[in-house]
Amino acid sequence: MLSKNKIRFIRSLDTKKVREEEDCFLAEGNKLVNDTIRYFDCRLLVATEQWLEQHPDIQSRETITATKEEIRKCSLLKNPQEVIAVYRKPEHPIEIEALKGCLVLALDTVQDPGNLGTIVRIADWFGIRDIVCSETCADIYNPKTVQATMGALARVRVHYTSLADFLRQIHPSPVYGTFLEGNAIYREELSGNGVIVMGNEGNGISEAIKPFVERKLYIPNYPPGAETSESLNVAIATAITCAEFRRRTR
Amino acid sequence: MLSKNKIRFIRSLDTKKVREEEDCFLAEGNKLVNDTIRYFDCRLLVATEQWLEQHPDIQSRETITATKEEIRKCSLLKNPQEVIAVYRKPEHPIEIEALKGCLVLALDTVQDPGNLGTIVRIADWFGIRDIVCSETCADIYNPKTVQATMGALARVRVHYTSLADFLRQIHPSPVYGTFLEGNAIYREELSGNGVIVMGNEGNGISEAIKPFVERKLYIPNYPPGAETSESLNVAIATAITCAEFRRRTR
Repeated sequence: MLSKNKIRFIRSLDTKKVREEEDCFLAEGNKLVNDTIRYFDCRLLVATEQWLEQHPDIQSRETITATKEEIRKCSLLKNPQEVIAVYRKPEHPIEIEALKGCLVLALDTVQDPGNLGTIVRIADWFGIRDIVCSETCADIYNPKTVQATMGALARVRVHYTSLADFLRQIHPSPVYGTFLEGNAIYREELSGNGVIVMGNEGNGISEAIKPFVERKLYIPNYPPGAETSESLNVAIATAITCAEFRRRTR
Repeated sequence: MLSKNKIRFIRSLDTKKVREEEDCFLAEGNKLVNDTIRYFDCRLLVATEQWLEQHPDIQSRETITATKEEIRKCSLLKNPQEVIAVYRKPEHPIEIEALKGCLVLALDTVQDPGNLGTIVRIADWFGIRDIVCSETCADIYNPKTVQATMGALARVRVHYTSLADFLRQIHPSPVYGTFLEGNAIYREELSGNGVIVMGNEGNGISEAIKPFVERKLYIPNYPPGAETSESLNVAIATAITCAEFRRRTR
Protein backbone atom coordinates (compact mmCIF):
# COMPACT_ATOMS: atom_id res chain seq x y z
CA MET A 1 0.00 0.00 0.00
CA LEU A 2 1.49 3.27 -1.17
CA SER A 3 0.93 6.24 1.19
CA LYS A 4 0.07 9.70 -0.05
CA ASN A 5 3.36 10.90 1.34
CA LYS A 6 5.31 8.39 -0.71
CA ILE A 7 3.38 9.31 -3.85
CA ARG A 8 4.13 12.99 -3.20
CA PHE A 9 7.81 12.21 -2.56
CA ILE A 10 8.21 10.26 -5.79
CA ARG A 11 6.47 12.89 -7.88
CA SER A 12 8.57 15.65 -6.30
CA LEU A 13 11.71 14.06 -7.77
CA ASP A 14 10.69 15.71 -11.02
CA THR A 15 12.29 18.91 -9.69
CA LYS A 16 16.04 19.40 -9.52
CA LYS A 17 15.87 21.09 -6.13
CA VAL A 18 14.30 18.04 -4.48
CA ARG A 19 16.70 15.67 -6.26
CA GLU A 20 19.59 17.67 -4.83
CA GLU A 21 18.16 17.83 -1.31
CA GLU A 22 17.36 14.14 -1.30
CA ASP A 23 20.47 13.14 -3.26
CA CYS A 24 18.43 10.71 -5.32
CA PHE A 25 16.62 10.30 -8.64
CA LEU A 26 13.90 8.32 -10.37
CA ALA A 27 14.03 5.46 -12.88
CA GLU A 28 10.78 4.12 -14.29
CA GLY A 29 9.65 1.21 -16.36
CA ASN A 30 10.28 -2.52 -16.48
CA LYS A 31 13.19 -2.46 -18.88
CA LEU A 32 14.97 0.60 -17.48
CA VAL A 33 14.79 -0.59 -13.87
CA ASN A 34 15.81 -4.09 -14.88
CA ASP A 35 18.83 -2.74 -16.76
CA THR A 36 19.99 -0.37 -14.04
CA ILE A 37 19.05 -1.63 -10.57
CA ARG A 38 22.18 -3.72 -10.01
CA TYR A 39 24.37 -0.66 -10.68
CA PHE A 40 22.75 1.75 -8.21
CA ASP A 41 21.94 1.90 -4.50
CA CYS A 42 18.15 1.53 -4.61
CA ARG A 43 16.52 3.52 -1.84
CA LEU A 44 12.91 2.74 -2.71
CA LEU A 45 11.30 0.30 -5.07
CA VAL A 46 7.60 0.46 -5.90
CA ALA A 47 6.38 -2.46 -7.96
CA THR A 48 3.41 -4.69 -8.62
CA GLU A 49 3.24 -8.03 -6.87
CA GLN A 50 3.72 -9.79 -10.18
CA TRP A 51 6.86 -7.80 -11.02
CA LEU A 52 8.36 -8.55 -7.61
CA GLU A 53 7.62 -12.26 -7.99
CA GLN A 54 9.39 -12.25 -11.35
CA HIS A 55 12.44 -10.47 -9.88
CA PRO A 56 13.14 -12.25 -6.60
CA ASP A 57 16.83 -11.23 -6.39
CA ILE A 58 16.28 -7.46 -6.55
CA GLN A 59 17.93 -5.49 -3.72
CA SER A 60 16.34 -2.34 -2.30
CA ARG A 61 16.47 -0.57 1.06
CA GLU A 62 12.68 -0.31 1.00
CA THR A 63 10.23 -2.18 -1.20
CA ILE A 64 6.54 -1.38 -1.51
CA THR A 65 4.08 -3.59 -3.32
CA ALA A 66 1.60 -1.44 -5.21
CA THR A 67 -1.26 -1.82 -7.63
CA LYS A 68 -0.92 -0.54 -11.19
CA GLU A 69 -3.35 2.22 -10.24
CA GLU A 70 -1.11 3.33 -7.37
CA ILE A 71 1.93 3.29 -9.65
CA ARG A 72 0.04 5.39 -12.17
CA LYS A 73 -0.49 7.99 -9.42
CA CYS A 74 3.22 8.54 -8.82
CA SER A 75 4.44 7.97 -12.36
CA LEU A 76 5.80 10.79 -14.51
CA LEU A 77 5.44 8.68 -17.66
CA LYS A 78 2.58 8.83 -20.13
CA ASN A 79 2.32 5.06 -20.02
CA PRO A 80 3.22 3.93 -16.52
CA GLN A 81 4.51 0.38 -16.15
CA GLU A 82 4.91 -2.08 -13.27
CA VAL A 83 7.89 -0.60 -11.45
CA ILE A 84 9.43 2.65 -10.22
CA ALA A 85 12.83 2.88 -8.52
CA VAL A 86 14.36 5.69 -6.50
CA TYR A 87 18.16 5.46 -6.66
CA ARG A 88 20.76 7.27 -4.64
CA LYS A 89 22.91 9.42 -6.94
CA PRO A 90 26.23 7.68 -7.52
CA GLU A 91 29.42 9.40 -6.37
CA HIS A 92 32.27 9.48 -8.81
CA PRO A 93 34.92 12.15 -8.45
CA ILE A 94 36.82 13.23 -11.58
CA GLU A 95 40.12 11.37 -11.69
CA ILE A 96 42.17 13.65 -13.89
CA GLU A 97 45.26 11.46 -14.21
CA ALA A 98 43.23 8.41 -15.22
CA LEU A 99 41.18 10.45 -17.70
CA LYS A 100 44.33 11.64 -19.48
CA GLY A 101 44.60 8.17 -20.99
CA CYS A 102 40.96 7.99 -22.12
CA LEU A 103 38.64 9.53 -24.65
CA VAL A 104 36.30 11.85 -22.72
CA LEU A 105 33.26 13.90 -23.76
CA ALA A 106 32.88 17.45 -22.41
CA LEU A 107 29.53 19.21 -22.78
CA ASP A 108 29.37 23.00 -22.81
CA THR A 109 25.80 24.04 -21.90
CA VAL A 110 23.93 21.21 -23.61
CA GLN A 111 20.51 22.15 -22.31
CA ASP A 112 17.97 19.78 -23.78
CA PRO A 113 17.31 16.81 -21.44
CA GLY A 114 16.63 14.51 -24.40
CA ASN A 115 19.89 15.46 -26.12
CA LEU A 116 21.86 14.83 -22.93
CA GLY A 117 20.26 11.40 -22.49
CA THR A 118 20.95 10.49 -26.11
CA ILE A 119 24.58 11.58 -25.73
CA VAL A 120 25.01 9.30 -22.70
CA ARG A 121 23.70 6.41 -24.81
CA ILE A 122 26.15 7.29 -27.60
CA ALA A 123 29.05 7.49 -25.13
CA ASP A 124 28.11 4.06 -23.80
CA TRP A 125 28.07 2.58 -27.31
CA PHE A 126 31.50 3.97 -28.10
CA GLY A 127 33.13 3.03 -24.81
CA ILE A 128 33.41 6.56 -23.46
CA ARG A 129 33.09 6.08 -19.71
CA ASP A 130 33.20 9.73 -18.55
CA ILE A 131 31.25 12.81 -19.60
CA VAL A 132 32.23 16.14 -18.05
CA CYS A 133 29.36 18.66 -18.09
CA SER A 134 29.44 22.39 -17.44
CA GLU A 135 27.19 23.39 -14.54
CA THR A 136 24.94 24.99 -17.17
CA CYS A 137 24.08 21.66 -18.82
CA ALA A 138 20.75 19.89 -18.33
CA ASP A 139 20.62 17.72 -15.21
CA ILE A 140 21.49 14.11 -15.95
CA TYR A 141 19.04 13.09 -13.19
CA ASN A 142 16.08 14.82 -14.83
CA PRO A 143 13.60 11.94 -15.30
CA LYS A 144 13.37 12.72 -19.05
CA THR A 145 17.15 12.42 -19.35
CA VAL A 146 17.30 9.23 -17.31
CA GLN A 147 14.64 7.70 -19.57
CA ALA A 148 16.49 8.86 -22.71
CA THR A 149 19.72 7.15 -21.61
CA MET A 150 17.88 3.80 -21.89
CA GLY A 151 19.99 2.37 -19.10
CA ALA A 152 23.34 3.62 -20.45
CA LEU A 153 23.54 5.83 -17.35
CA ALA A 154 24.58 2.72 -15.43
CA ARG A 155 27.82 2.47 -17.41
CA VAL A 156 28.73 6.15 -18.01
CA ARG A 157 29.91 8.52 -15.26
CA VAL A 158 28.49 12.03 -15.70
CA HIS A 159 30.37 14.78 -13.82
CA TYR A 160 29.43 18.44 -13.29
CA THR A 161 32.19 20.98 -12.83
CA SER A 162 33.71 24.15 -14.24
CA LEU A 163 34.59 23.13 -17.79
CA ALA A 164 37.41 25.68 -18.00
CA ASP A 165 39.03 24.28 -14.84
CA PHE A 166 38.69 20.73 -16.15
CA LEU A 167 40.24 21.60 -19.51
CA ARG A 168 43.10 23.39 -17.76
CA GLN A 169 43.75 20.31 -15.62
CA ILE A 170 43.50 17.75 -18.42
CA HIS A 171 46.39 19.41 -20.30
CA PRO A 172 48.42 18.12 -22.23
CA SER A 173 45.64 15.77 -23.47
CA PRO A 174 44.46 16.99 -26.87
CA VAL A 175 41.18 18.95 -26.81
CA TYR A 176 38.91 18.62 -29.86
CA GLY A 177 35.72 20.49 -30.67
CA THR A 178 33.36 20.78 -33.62
CA PHE A 179 33.08 24.15 -35.34
CA LEU A 180 31.51 25.19 -38.62
CA GLU A 181 34.89 26.71 -39.52
CA GLY A 182 36.88 23.63 -38.40
CA ASN A 183 38.87 21.19 -40.52
CA ALA A 184 37.15 18.20 -42.12
CA ILE A 185 37.27 15.47 -39.48
CA TYR A 186 38.19 12.84 -42.09
CA ARG A 187 41.47 14.58 -42.87
CA GLU A 188 42.52 15.28 -39.27
CA GLU A 189 44.63 13.10 -37.05
CA LEU A 190 42.49 11.74 -34.22
CA SER A 191 43.94 10.23 -31.05
CA GLY A 192 42.76 7.39 -28.84
CA ASN A 193 42.71 9.71 -25.83
CA GLY A 194 41.71 13.34 -25.37
CA VAL A 195 38.62 15.45 -24.83
CA ILE A 196 35.85 16.08 -27.37
CA VAL A 197 33.97 19.28 -26.49
CA MET A 198 30.39 19.61 -27.76
CA GLY A 199 28.62 22.97 -27.56
CA ASN A 200 25.19 24.39 -26.83
CA GLU A 201 22.22 23.62 -29.12
CA GLY A 202 21.90 27.17 -30.41
CA ASN A 203 25.26 28.81 -29.79
CA GLY A 204 27.84 26.05 -30.06
CA ILE A 205 30.99 26.20 -27.93
CA SER A 206 31.10 29.31 -25.74
CA GLU A 207 33.69 32.08 -25.98
CA ALA A 208 35.10 31.09 -22.57
CA ILE A 209 35.78 27.52 -23.71
CA LYS A 210 36.95 28.15 -27.30
CA PRO A 211 40.57 29.01 -26.30
CA PHE A 212 41.01 25.51 -24.84
CA VAL A 213 40.05 23.77 -28.09
CA GLU A 214 43.23 23.41 -30.09
CA ARG A 215 41.87 20.96 -32.68
CA LYS A 216 38.83 22.27 -34.50
CA LEU A 217 36.85 19.66 -36.38
CA TYR A 218 34.06 19.94 -38.91
CA ILE A 219 31.67 17.22 -40.12
CA PRO A 220 31.58 17.92 -43.86
CA ASN A 221 28.22 18.08 -45.55
CA TYR A 222 27.69 16.41 -48.93
CA PRO A 223 28.28 17.33 -51.65
CA PRO A 224 30.78 19.95 -50.43
CA GLY A 225 29.41 23.45 -50.83
CA ALA A 226 25.78 22.41 -51.35
CA GLU A 227 23.05 24.47 -49.74
CA THR A 228 22.06 22.66 -46.57
CA SER A 229 20.98 23.08 -42.93
CA GLU A 230 23.09 25.45 -40.85
CA SER A 231 24.23 22.73 -38.51
CA LEU A 232 23.56 19.26 -37.19
CA ASN A 233 21.78 18.58 -33.90
CA VAL A 234 24.34 18.27 -31.07
CA ALA A 235 23.58 14.61 -30.34
CA ILE A 236 23.89 13.78 -34.05
CA ALA A 237 27.23 15.62 -34.30
CA THR A 238 28.43 13.81 -31.14
CA ALA A 239 27.52 10.45 -32.65
CA ILE A 240 29.31 11.03 -35.94
CA THR A 241 32.39 12.42 -34.17
CA CYS A 242 32.64 9.56 -31.66
CA ALA A 243 32.09 6.97 -34.40
CA GLU A 244 34.95 8.48 -36.43
CA PHE A 245 37.33 8.55 -33.43
CA ARG A 246 36.61 4.91 -32.71
CA ARG A 247 36.83 3.87 -36.37
CA ARG A 248 40.41 5.15 -36.42
CA THR A 249 41.56 3.32 -33.33
CA ARG A 250 39.88 0.07 -34.29
CA MET B 1 -7.22 41.17 -36.93
CA LEU B 2 -7.35 37.40 -36.56
CA SER B 3 -10.86 35.88 -36.50
CA LYS B 4 -11.85 33.08 -34.19
CA ASN B 5 -12.41 30.91 -37.24
CA LYS B 6 -8.86 31.43 -38.43
CA ILE B 7 -7.46 30.68 -34.98
CA ARG B 8 -9.53 27.49 -34.87
CA PHE B 9 -8.36 26.55 -38.38
CA ILE B 10 -4.68 27.02 -37.57
CA ARG B 11 -4.89 25.07 -34.34
CA SER B 12 -6.79 22.26 -36.05
CA LEU B 13 -3.74 21.62 -38.25
CA ASP B 14 -2.27 19.81 -35.27
CA THR B 15 -4.35 16.78 -36.32
CA LYS B 16 -3.42 14.61 -39.28
CA LYS B 17 -7.03 14.28 -40.43
CA VAL B 18 -7.40 18.04 -40.90
CA ARG B 19 -3.99 18.31 -42.58
CA GLU B 20 -5.10 15.67 -45.07
CA GLU B 21 -8.50 17.24 -45.73
CA GLU B 22 -7.00 20.71 -46.14
CA ASP B 23 -3.85 19.45 -47.90
CA CYS B 24 -1.73 21.85 -45.88
CA PHE B 25 0.49 22.12 -42.82
CA LEU B 26 1.90 24.56 -40.30
CA ALA B 27 5.34 26.13 -39.92
CA GLU B 28 5.98 28.40 -36.95
CA GLY B 29 8.66 30.77 -35.80
CA ASN B 30 10.78 33.51 -37.32
CA LYS B 31 13.69 31.34 -38.37
CA LEU B 32 11.71 28.38 -39.65
CA VAL B 33 9.32 30.48 -41.74
CA ASN B 34 12.17 32.60 -43.04
CA ASP B 35 14.11 29.48 -44.10
CA THR B 36 11.17 27.74 -45.77
CA ILE B 37 8.67 30.23 -47.19
CA ARG B 38 10.31 30.60 -50.57
CA TYR B 39 10.14 26.82 -51.11
CA PHE B 40 6.43 26.34 -50.41
CA ASP B 41 3.10 27.66 -51.66
CA CYS B 42 2.04 29.79 -48.68
CA ARG B 43 -1.72 29.72 -48.24
CA LEU B 44 -1.91 31.86 -45.12
CA LEU B 45 0.62 33.98 -43.28
CA VAL B 46 -0.09 35.38 -39.83
CA ALA B 47 2.55 37.80 -38.59
CA THR B 48 3.14 40.89 -36.51
CA GLU B 49 3.28 44.27 -38.26
CA GLN B 50 6.96 44.52 -37.42
CA TRP B 51 7.77 41.12 -38.94
CA LEU B 52 5.90 41.99 -42.13
CA GLU B 53 7.74 45.31 -42.41
CA GLN B 54 11.05 43.48 -42.07
CA HIS B 55 10.08 40.95 -44.77
CA PRO B 56 8.54 43.02 -47.56
CA ASP B 57 9.17 40.46 -50.34
CA ILE B 58 7.29 37.57 -48.74
CA GLN B 59 4.65 35.96 -50.97
CA SER B 60 1.43 34.53 -49.53
CA ARG B 61 -2.10 33.96 -50.88
CA GLU B 62 -3.48 35.57 -47.74
CA THR B 63 -1.66 37.65 -45.15
CA ILE B 64 -3.09 38.68 -41.80
CA THR B 65 -1.44 41.18 -39.49
CA ALA B 66 -1.82 40.07 -35.90
CA THR B 67 -0.68 41.04 -32.44
CA LYS B 68 1.69 38.78 -30.50
CA GLU B 69 -1.25 37.96 -28.24
CA GLU B 70 -3.33 36.80 -31.23
CA ILE B 71 -0.43 34.69 -32.48
CA ARG B 72 -0.09 33.13 -29.05
CA LYS B 73 -3.74 32.05 -29.34
CA CYS B 74 -3.18 30.00 -32.47
CA SER B 75 0.35 28.83 -31.75
CA LEU B 76 1.19 25.23 -30.93
CA LEU B 77 4.62 26.23 -29.60
CA LYS B 78 5.54 26.78 -25.96
CA ASN B 79 7.19 30.06 -26.89
CA PRO B 80 5.23 31.59 -29.78
CA GLN B 81 7.11 34.01 -32.02
CA GLU B 82 6.11 36.66 -34.55
CA VAL B 83 4.98 34.51 -37.47
CA ILE B 84 2.96 31.43 -38.41
CA ALA B 85 2.67 30.10 -41.95
CA VAL B 86 0.22 27.63 -43.45
CA TYR B 87 1.79 25.92 -46.48
CA ARG B 88 0.20 23.74 -49.10
CA LYS B 89 1.77 20.28 -49.00
CA PRO B 90 4.22 19.93 -51.87
CA GLU B 91 3.59 17.30 -54.55
CA HIS B 92 6.51 15.15 -55.54
CA PRO B 93 5.83 11.76 -57.06
CA ILE B 94 8.48 9.03 -56.63
CA GLU B 95 10.61 8.93 -59.78
CA ILE B 96 11.98 5.41 -59.60
CA GLU B 97 14.38 5.63 -62.55
CA ALA B 98 15.96 8.85 -61.26
CA LEU B 99 16.25 7.44 -57.75
CA LYS B 100 18.19 4.43 -59.01
CA GLY B 101 21.19 6.74 -59.41
CA CYS B 102 20.90 8.31 -55.95
CA LEU B 103 21.37 7.44 -52.33
CA VAL B 104 17.88 7.21 -50.78
CA LEU B 105 16.69 6.67 -47.21
CA ALA B 106 13.75 4.33 -46.58
CA LEU B 107 12.03 4.39 -43.19
CA ASP B 108 10.17 1.33 -41.95
CA THR B 109 7.68 2.46 -39.27
CA VAL B 110 9.78 5.21 -37.69
CA GLN B 111 7.08 6.46 -35.35
CA ASP B 112 8.52 9.25 -33.24
CA PRO B 113 7.85 12.70 -34.79
CA GLY B 114 11.11 14.07 -33.37
CA ASN B 115 13.16 11.20 -34.80
CA LEU B 116 11.59 11.69 -38.23
CA GLY B 117 12.35 15.42 -38.18
CA THR B 118 15.93 14.80 -37.10
CA ILE B 119 16.37 12.23 -39.88
CA VAL B 120 15.18 14.79 -42.47
CA ARG B 121 17.82 17.20 -41.15
CA ILE B 122 20.50 14.48 -41.41
CA ALA B 123 19.42 13.64 -44.96
CA ASP B 124 19.69 17.31 -45.90
CA TRP B 125 23.21 17.52 -44.45
CA PHE B 126 24.36 14.49 -46.39
CA GLY B 127 22.75 15.42 -49.69
CA ILE B 128 20.05 12.77 -49.60
CA ARG B 129 17.16 14.38 -51.45
CA ASP B 130 14.50 11.65 -51.09
CA ILE B 131 13.18 9.75 -48.09
CA VAL B 132 10.66 6.99 -48.73
CA CYS B 133 8.47 6.26 -45.68
CA SER B 134 6.18 3.34 -45.00
CA GLU B 135 2.58 4.44 -44.44
CA THR B 136 3.11 3.45 -40.79
CA CYS B 137 5.75 6.15 -40.18
CA ALA B 138 5.04 9.37 -38.29
CA ASP B 139 3.55 12.14 -40.45
CA ILE B 140 6.20 14.49 -41.80
CA TYR B 141 3.63 17.30 -41.59
CA ASN B 142 3.07 16.83 -37.84
CA PRO B 143 3.98 20.29 -36.44
CA LYS B 144 6.53 18.67 -34.06
CA THR B 145 8.23 17.00 -37.02
CA VAL B 146 8.19 20.15 -39.14
CA GLN B 147 9.85 22.05 -36.26
CA ALA B 148 12.44 19.29 -35.75
CA THR B 149 13.51 19.45 -39.42
CA MET B 150 14.72 23.02 -38.76
CA GLY B 151 13.91 23.99 -42.34
CA ALA B 152 15.55 20.95 -43.95
CA LEU B 153 12.06 19.92 -45.09
CA ALA B 154 12.39 22.54 -47.82
CA ARG B 155 15.22 20.58 -49.46
CA VAL B 156 14.24 16.95 -48.82
CA ARG B 157 11.30 15.21 -50.51
CA VAL B 158 9.46 12.85 -48.15
CA HIS B 159 7.27 10.23 -49.82
CA TYR B 160 4.75 7.82 -48.30
CA THR B 161 4.11 4.51 -50.01
CA SER B 162 4.23 0.75 -49.58
CA LEU B 163 7.89 0.15 -48.74
CA ALA B 164 7.80 -3.39 -50.14
CA ASP B 165 6.49 -2.11 -53.49
CA PHE B 166 9.15 0.60 -53.57
CA LEU B 167 11.97 -1.83 -52.80
CA ARG B 168 10.70 -4.20 -55.49
CA GLN B 169 10.69 -1.37 -58.04
CA ILE B 170 14.11 0.07 -57.11
CA HIS B 171 15.80 -3.26 -58.00
CA PRO B 172 18.70 -3.69 -58.97
CA SER B 173 19.85 -0.78 -56.76
CA PRO B 174 21.58 -2.19 -53.70
CA VAL B 175 19.43 -2.20 -50.53
CA TYR B 176 21.25 -1.72 -47.20
CA GLY B 177 19.90 -1.93 -43.68
CA THR B 178 21.30 -1.88 -40.15
CA PHE B 179 20.96 -5.03 -38.07
CA LEU B 180 22.55 -6.07 -34.80
CA GLU B 181 23.69 -9.22 -36.62
CA GLY B 182 24.98 -7.31 -39.68
CA ASN B 183 28.57 -6.88 -40.88
CA ALA B 184 30.72 -4.03 -39.54
CA ILE B 185 29.94 -1.07 -41.79
CA TYR B 186 33.63 -0.09 -41.93
CA ARG B 187 34.55 -3.34 -43.66
CA GLU B 188 31.69 -3.40 -46.16
CA GLU B 189 31.69 -1.99 -49.65
CA LEU B 190 29.33 0.99 -49.80
CA SER B 191 28.03 2.45 -53.04
CA GLY B 192 27.21 6.01 -54.08
CA ASN B 193 23.66 4.96 -54.91
CA GLY B 194 21.17 2.59 -53.30
CA VAL B 195 18.64 2.49 -50.50
CA ILE B 196 19.43 2.58 -46.77
CA VAL B 197 16.50 1.11 -44.80
CA MET B 198 16.14 2.20 -41.17
CA GLY B 199 13.72 0.37 -38.89
CA ASN B 200 11.26 1.06 -36.11
CA GLU B 201 12.45 2.47 -32.75
CA GLY B 202 11.64 -0.67 -30.79
CA ASN B 203 11.53 -3.47 -33.32
CA GLY B 204 13.96 -2.54 -36.06
CA ILE B 205 13.30 -3.57 -39.65
CA SER B 206 10.06 -5.55 -40.00
CA GLU B 207 9.81 -9.17 -41.14
CA ALA B 208 8.03 -8.05 -44.32
CA ILE B 209 10.92 -5.77 -45.32
CA LYS B 210 13.90 -7.89 -44.21
CA PRO B 211 13.94 -10.08 -47.37
CA PHE B 212 14.63 -6.98 -49.50
CA VAL B 213 17.73 -6.00 -47.54
CA GLU B 214 20.63 -7.83 -49.18
CA ARG B 215 23.42 -5.89 -47.44
CA LYS B 216 23.19 -6.04 -43.68
CA LEU B 217 25.27 -3.44 -41.86
CA TYR B 218 26.21 -3.05 -38.21
CA ILE B 219 27.66 -0.01 -36.45
CA PRO B 220 30.30 -1.61 -34.23
CA ASN B 221 30.42 -0.61 -30.60
CA TYR B 222 33.75 0.04 -28.90
CA PRO B 223 35.71 -1.76 -27.68
CA PRO B 224 34.35 -4.78 -29.57
CA GLY B 225 32.48 -7.13 -27.27
CA ALA B 226 32.13 -4.66 -24.37
CA GLU B 227 28.88 -4.59 -22.44
CA THR B 228 26.86 -1.69 -23.81
CA SER B 229 23.38 -0.47 -24.72
CA GLU B 230 21.30 -2.85 -26.80
CA SER B 231 21.13 -0.48 -29.74
CA LEU B 232 21.51 3.10 -30.90
CA ASN B 233 18.58 5.46 -31.38
CA VAL B 234 17.32 5.27 -34.98
CA ALA B 235 18.26 8.89 -35.80
CA ILE B 236 21.76 8.35 -34.37
CA ALA B 237 22.22 5.16 -36.39
CA THR B 238 20.96 6.96 -39.50
CA ALA B 239 23.49 9.75 -38.96
CA ILE B 240 26.49 7.46 -38.53
CA THR B 241 25.45 5.33 -41.51
CA CYS B 242 24.90 8.30 -43.84
CA ALA B 243 28.18 9.91 -42.73
CA GLU B 244 30.07 6.71 -43.53
CA PHE B 245 28.45 6.34 -46.98
CA ARG B 246 29.39 9.92 -47.83
CA ARG B 247 32.90 9.62 -46.40
CA ARG B 248 33.56 6.80 -48.89
CA THR B 249 32.37 8.68 -51.96
CA ARG B 250 34.12 11.92 -51.05
